[in-house]
Amino acid sequence: MAGTDHRKQVFSIGPAIVLVEPQLAENIGTVARAMANFGLSELRLVRPRPQLPSAKAEAAASGAVAILNEARLFDTVEQAIADLRLVVATTARERGQAKPVDSPKQTAVRIAERLSAGEAAGILFGRERTGLLNDEVSIADRVLTFPVNPGFASLNLGQAVLLFGYEWWMHTTGGALPFDMPNLSPHASKAEVLALFQHLEGELDETSFFRSPEKRAVMVRNLRNIVQRLEPTRQDLQTLHGIVAALVEGRRQKERRPRKALKPLQEVDGEES
Amino acid sequence: MAGTDHRKQVFSIGPAIVLVEPQLAENIGTVARAMANFGLSELRLVRPRPQLPSAKAEAAASGAVAILNEARLFDTVEQAIADLRLVVATTARERGQAKPVDSPKQTAVRIAERLSAGEAAGILFGRERTGLLNDEVSIADRVLTFPVNPGFASLNLGQAVLLFGYEWWMHTTGGALPFDMPNLSPHASKAEVLALFQHLEGELDETSFFRSPEKRAVMVRNLRNIVQRLEPTRQDLQTLHGIVAALVEGRRQKERRPRKALKPLQEVDGEES
Repeated sequence: MAGTDHRKQVFSIGPAIVLVEPQLAENIGTVARAMANFGLSELRLVRPRPQLPSAKAEAAASGAVAILNEARLFDTVEQAIADLRLVVATTARERGQAKPVDSPKQTAVRIAERLSAGEAAGILFGRERTGLLNDEVSIADRVLTFPVNPGFASLNLGQAVLLFGYEWWMHTTGGALPFDMPNLSPHASKAEVLALFQHLEGELDETSFFRSPEKRAVMVRNLRNIVQRLEPTRQDLQTLHGIVAALVEGRRQKERRPRKALKPLQEVDGEES
Repeated sequence: MAGTDHRKQVFSIGPAIVLVEPQLAENIGTVARAMANFGLSELRLVRPRPQLPSAKAEAAASGAVAILNEARLFDTVEQAIADLRLVVATTARERGQAKPVDSPKQTAVRIAERLSAGEAAGILFGRERTGLLNDEVSIADRVLTFPVNPGFASLNLGQAVLLFGYEWWMHTTGGALPFDMPNLSPHASKAEVLALFQHLEGELDETSFFRSPEKRAVMVRNLRNIVQRLEPTRQDLQTLHGIVAALVEGRRQKERRPRKALKPLQEVDGEES
């Protein structure tokens, strides 16, 4: 989906994402892409199997090539985490290790606390098929795991980094959406709403819509509630005034013509429902 | 990452995921995979470009083939949503339409409310490059958009469905993690903790560790706080008793030998920090 504005490039100071022996170039690329989506920039690779730079990784990164180009390579996990003061190990299953287990959101909160105290942090992600070794988990401070359908728990590297990144972004930026409903016109004042009622109900009084004087009161109340449930703007009311006027005008000016056949959309509705 | 237990297959009643003119078989597959991760099962496809069934889509679905096989095909968006009572359109950018805009979490909450009232709901996802047409957005009730880095806002179909699915799963299941820290042993009682202090401090009194009687009080307090910050279990204390005993025993039994060289891990620490 589109929507990228390169003038708005945002990279927060975030945890290092450490991939331990990633086997597929494509996964390194999708990790870089997921990092860019959520403002993470520091990628560390321990003994990646693909030769880097890799055209496949770059294609999968889908524009996040700077993260790939700046990725640092390490021979051992110990080297890759030596400067970090909080290390989180990602695992999908219980390892029997007496280590606190956090959700993506809890991990984001904890890492943000450490980073704001000036302490570097990182998250270890293991090999595609086998994950992290137990000895690698044992040198981490905490464990990160994902709340997933236990019947289909397989997350690939790019997905796992995406979900952590999402919570990281939500926590550190407040999760503001890129846009909101446009508010081109203020909500109508009650005087404006009442004017529409007067217009509409007056025109309907000229027709057989209100079947009897006894029913009129209830029908008017229903109609007013329909309009007010819209929380209409001034612009909405102008449109509605125009519709009422056009329908009245059309009825007065034109001879009665046979009603058009139902539109295709309504035919479909009938078939499906 | 591993961890799937097929005996635990969980599919909630969830919204239909409606892909409008998806162009790439791989994306249809990654959408099915993301759906399975978070217990969504109803996939609808409007004029997909790939011929289905597709080996590429199945490979990308990574086991979520049942969702692909049960996907329903439609010729028009109107047909695909005709039976739904709440339709959400996913867009990455503002469309200038006076329609409420929700985050993934807000969308999950709203859809869950409707589903629990027995009303079917669905989410439209547009074409890979161009998204949904404005006329397609106009027949939805609400808009879903994702909080992403405005400098790198490109999410592919699989990622977008994954992020919605995550919030759906969090909201509808409470987001329980697949496992927690194993609690094999209860936390130690204070009597057990004090017994360790007595053992350790008694052995240290036999050494030159406490440099002077004046410093002893402060050093003992520091040492006790280190142990208590662990919130030790009974098992932890047994391990620590064993370590103290082994160190004392080793020192008594063996002649003094030259200290071993620093271990590689420590050398690395020195280089990196």
